Amino acid sequence: MSLKLYGYWRSSATYRTRIALNLKQLDYEIIPVHLVKEGGEQHQQPYARLNPAELVPTLVDEDEDIILNQSLAIIEYLDERYDSGQPLLPEHKLQRARVRALAYDIAADIQPLVNLRVLQYIQREHGIDDENKSLWCRHWIEKGFTAIEERLQTTAGKYCFGFDLSLADICLVPQVYNATRFGVDLDKYPLISRIASNCNQLTAFEQALPENQPDAG
Amino acid sequence: MSLKLYGYWRSSATYRTRIALNLKQLDYEIIPVHLVKEGGEQHQQPYARLNPAELVPTLVDEDEDIILNQSLAIIEYLDERYDSGQPLLPEHKLQRARVRALAYDIAADIQPLVNLRVLQYIQREHGIDDENKSLWCRHWIEKGFTAIEERLQTTAGKYCFGFDLSLADICLVPQVYNATRFGVDLDKYPLISRIASNCNQLTAFEQALPENQPDAG
Repeated sequence: MSLKLYGYWRSSATYRTRIALNLKQLDYEIIPVHLVKEGGEQHQQPYARLNPAELVPTLVDEDEDIILNQSLAIIEYLDERYDSGQPLLPEHKLQRARVRALAYDIAADIQPLVNLRVLQYIQREHGIDDENKSLWCRHWIEKGFTAIEERLQTTAGKYCFGFDLSLADICLVPQVYNATRFGVDLDKYPLISRIASNCNQLTAFEQALPENQPDAG
Repeated sequence: MSLKLYGYWRSSATYRTRIALNLKQLDYEIIPVHLVKEGGEQHQQPYARLNPAELVPTLVDEDEDIILNQSLAIIEYLDERYDSGQPLLPEHKLQRARVRALAYDIAADIQPLVNLRVLQYIQREHGIDDENKSLWCRHWIEKGFTAIEERLQTTAGKYCFGFDLSLADICLVPQVYNATRFGVDLDKYPLISRIASNCNQLTAFEQALPENQPDAG
């Protein structure tokens, strides 16, 4: 198989990449990188050589001889490289810009603040306990979701932008999954909840669910 | 003037957007949004209506009737919409993917952790003082820069990717500016330093410098 996805079942960024690969109907091999076991396999060789940032995911496309990090760069690459399946960005440049902005509202303004390495750091360096780690996560997720819920009022249909799936939905669903883990009350975000639920009825999303991965547990 | 940029002189994301507008040789009006004065103008009307995330920048393109947030969405939009000046992404999809990945290494993995709202929050909620805020910033910037310095060894020429400016340089220069503010020792990152210095000799970058903005001070 020419596509190899290095990642972790519960990582939001890996989850996004799985959804995109599934929507593009691509075959890929999952190579688990355990983020917790023995201090984290992402910090050890051989993975750290593949991705010096020691973060997941990393995609290797052997046909193109490319090793690529950053889920959003990977997803745009897949969309430009492969015609199969679902387009992940709209054709019109204004619409594409809006989709990207909503994707970054999640991928730049929420997720980087609530990921594992940040939680490990605030616990280790600032003695923040589990209860306060959850408070921290809820704060940033709720701040982000409040703005996104407002934006969706003018764009949403069945999905974030009308009736076509896009990169925005690919980012939203893993963030909703993550919000649930940290006890965010999703009833406050009816559009977000409805869109996530619509997405989760699709096979591409269902097969990408963390608990359906070989390394889950 | 049909392009209006709402932003703050010292915001990294606004700084990126200014560089891109300058490289595209576009005229634009700067509308300052003061992030600190009176609790932050970004949280007040009329700005908060324009951008419910209450973050900067926001670009308004009146010709297209579009209001756009997220610096990276704005920059890709400008590149797709306007043929003038410098292309901001390479034409080849593999190269474009690599440029985007490096841009996100900064815009998703460093900058979201060291921006004003996060520093205000860790001070207010967790009592972290100025000295420890600087430590926090240096930690995340150095972690990111170490990985980026390693990646640049295989890609850098005069700029991050060979001899063509790109989105990666547009993200790198404001992060270097920000690193200097927080006392990061840039001698540890010779490629990053050299590239930033090459960029800063260009008029587009020089005119985008925070201290050259009308609201600086």
